[in-house]
Amino acid sequence: MPLRDDMQLISVDDHVVEPPDVWQKRLPQRYLDAAPRIVEEETESGGAPAHVWYYEGRRYPQIGLNAVAGKRPEEFGTEPLRYSDMLPGCYDPEARLIDMDLDGSHAALCFPSFPRFAGTNFLMGEDKDLSLLCVQAWNDFMIDEWCATAPDRLIPIVIMPLWDVDLCVAELERTAAKGARTVSFSENPAPLGLPSFHTTYWDRFFALAAEAQIPLSMHFGSSGRAPTTAPEAPFATQITLYGCNSMYAATDLMFSPVFHTHPELKVSLAEGGIGWVPYLLERADYVWERHRHYQNVNQEMKPSEIFARNIWGCFIEDEHGVRNRDVIGIDKIMWECDYPHSDSNWPNSRKKAADVLAGVPDDEAHKIVELNARELFRFPRTAP
Amino acid sequence: MPLRDDMQLISVDDHVVEPPDVWQKRLPQRYLDAAPRIVEEETESGGAPAHVWYYEGRRYPQIGLNAVAGKRPEEFGTEPLRYSDMLPGCYDPEARLIDMDLDGSHAALCFPSFPRFAGTNFLMGEDKDLSLLCVQAWNDFMIDEWCATAPDRLIPIVIMPLWDVDLCVAELERTAAKGARTVSFSENPAPLGLPSFHTTYWDRFFALAAEAQIPLSMHFGSSGRAPTTAPEAPFATQITLYGCNSMYAATDLMFSPVFHTHPELKVSLAEGGIGWVPYLLERADYVWERHRHYQNVNQEMKPSEIFARNIWGCFIEDEHGVRNRDVIGIDKIMWECDYPHSDSNWPNSRKKAADVLAGVPDDEAHKIVELNARELFRFPRTAP
Repeated sequence: MPLRDDMQLISVDDHVVEPPDVWQKRLPQRYLDAAPRIVEEETESGGAPAHVWYYEGRRYPQIGLNAVAGKRPEEFGTEPLRYSDMLPGCYDPEARLIDMDLDGSHAALCFPSFPRFAGTNFLMGEDKDLSLLCVQAWNDFMIDEWCATAPDRLIPIVIMPLWDVDLCVAELERTAAKGARTVSFSENPAPLGLPSFHTTYWDRFFALAAEAQIPLSMHFGSSGRAPTTAPEAPFATQITLYGCNSMYAATDLMFSPVFHTHPELKVSLAEGGIGWVPYLLERADYVWERHRHYQNVNQEMKPSEIFARNIWGCFIEDEHGVRNRDVIGIDKIMWECDYPHSDSNWPNSRKKAADVLAGVPDDEAHKIVELNARELFRFPRTAP
Repeated sequence: MPLRDDMQLISVDDHVVEPPDVWQKRLPQRYLDAAPRIVEEETESGGAPAHVWYYEGRRYPQIGLNAVAGKRPEEFGTEPLRYSDMLPGCYDPEARLIDMDLDGSHAALCFPSFPRFAGTNFLMGEDKDLSLLCVQAWNDFMIDEWCATAPDRLIPIVIMPLWDVDLCVAELERTAAKGARTVSFSENPAPLGLPSFHTTYWDRFFALAAEAQIPLSMHFGSSGRAPTTAPEAPFATQITLYGCNSMYAATDLMFSPVFHTHPELKVSLAEGGIGWVPYLLERADYVWERHRHYQNVNQEMKPSEIFARNIWGCFIEDEHGVRNRDVIGIDKIMWECDYPHSDSNWPNSRKKAADVLAGVPDDEAHKIVELNARELFRFPRTAP
């Protein structure tokens, strides 16, 4: 059956390509050369110059695959590109709303592009004063400019100055006060050289997030770890395996003290799919039953109980996951569009979602495409 | 329903703990000091001395978790141990048969312990002449001693001199001639510093394995890569996530040229579970549909079609996998016991298998516990 007209699709994983002026119009004059800025560069193919980010003298090409909405798969590629190669909806919020209308979706949560999903490019910055200003500038852009264009359709997500938990607390307080609804946090800080989920380092930040009812959105890949198999392996191998990053994150968290110390903290695993959840929870419980006795893990609560209380997942097309939604938990599943990335079905997202949910009762489909996201991100309906 | 009495359980993933004399009684005198030998060492806890392997002067403690059959989970641990701490069935084939009888299982395929699953300890050896002799000695032990004890109940598996494909070809020819039924091969040679599945390096070896109808058994972890999340993460995290190694291996192979060059080659993923298969195949096909056009992957055959033709999986207890056996392929699923490792249900394996397969029709259960393994490993029934 088609999705009922009154169901407003909310995507919990889309992406914004930052316009060139995000940092240039917000940072003090003395930082403008070092802060992220767009430079035109000749390409090897000799076509129109590419738009390339520079930050503290380092070069960051834009990746073509990150803005393929509207292209046919036969046109996909990984070459650098220009803003004019993208749909304006990638970087212009008014155009984005039109593209969302075309797609039949109502609201979207947009992860960063240049800063990387969890803002980890600024973690790598040499001048940490500049890094902090860059984080704040992105958050101000997201809340005051991008989401302010349509407060009932764009969900404010913020990034954190990950190198210092006190700064994280301060930035979360600052942005929560002006409407932030979720933090894009790393799926695993350890590979980034930061304290892991098994330390007490993040406790003050997690406590604040729990108290402020700000869930953490963990996008796959935000650990900086790619699921590589071999140097010569085609990129399709990695794209296929990125969901394993979300399996790693879920497992790492379920066996960590995080949700025992912060039972109210909520985590959304972005773009990881859901079809692996039943397997993983069964496996984690099996291991917990056998191995908890001699290990530093919580002895009272099964991993699957932790998942059921604290972790959400989402999908684009995941027939296996949808078929097993009872095991995953009908309240824990959300929908995503992934505009303008290569997994997205834009402009056919609503149609595809209807296809995948064809066998699902209306009340369950409604939870999946809209209501679960509204509740998790406290994003209420407004009068039309 | 219980498993029918005439169903002979065949485990495609068990383990032998090598007795101390495997190499000492087979290698030339001049190598006996450098070849693997057992040394008694004091333990930190001050109890009975531990038995520790030494090889080329390097120390390799035995891992307690590798021989916990018969222990209650409350007694599990990772301390080094002595042979007398283990069930004799770990290292004595006559005792193993008795333990298999107790367990209600009929036949077993036993991976190496000291050499590591795919014999990669010998890949690390400094003296490669010694390494080759060590590989050959283990294979002779496995075929002439271990399996010869009961040729209709113990399936000959061999390891390869992985550092040289010509030596692999020669050793496979030598051991196939004396009855080897499968090769324990690395789930991914690249992290071991060897050419990956995306090169032509292994072609002569794979061609021979295909021609000789010798499937490759790839045990999870045989790439030398552990699924670690963080230094402080409890070991339960890794144990839970090891199945992701098999997801990596399946994906790496499905997007490689291996099965296009060698359509008759067969791979068994050992200990990886099967519950993830439906998710992964759906995801791999999705990626292939969208991303094959600009990538160096086969353009004709979907990843799921390759899996259906070339890859087998196995499980101990995997309710989700069993419930979705139609998607995985009823001919591609095998059973495993994992004696004497910590995942094993010994001596209740048959009872547990019956529980997991309770809702499965007899003909399908028979394929899973016995017939698929007999066919894949060409291990025929003999008169009782």
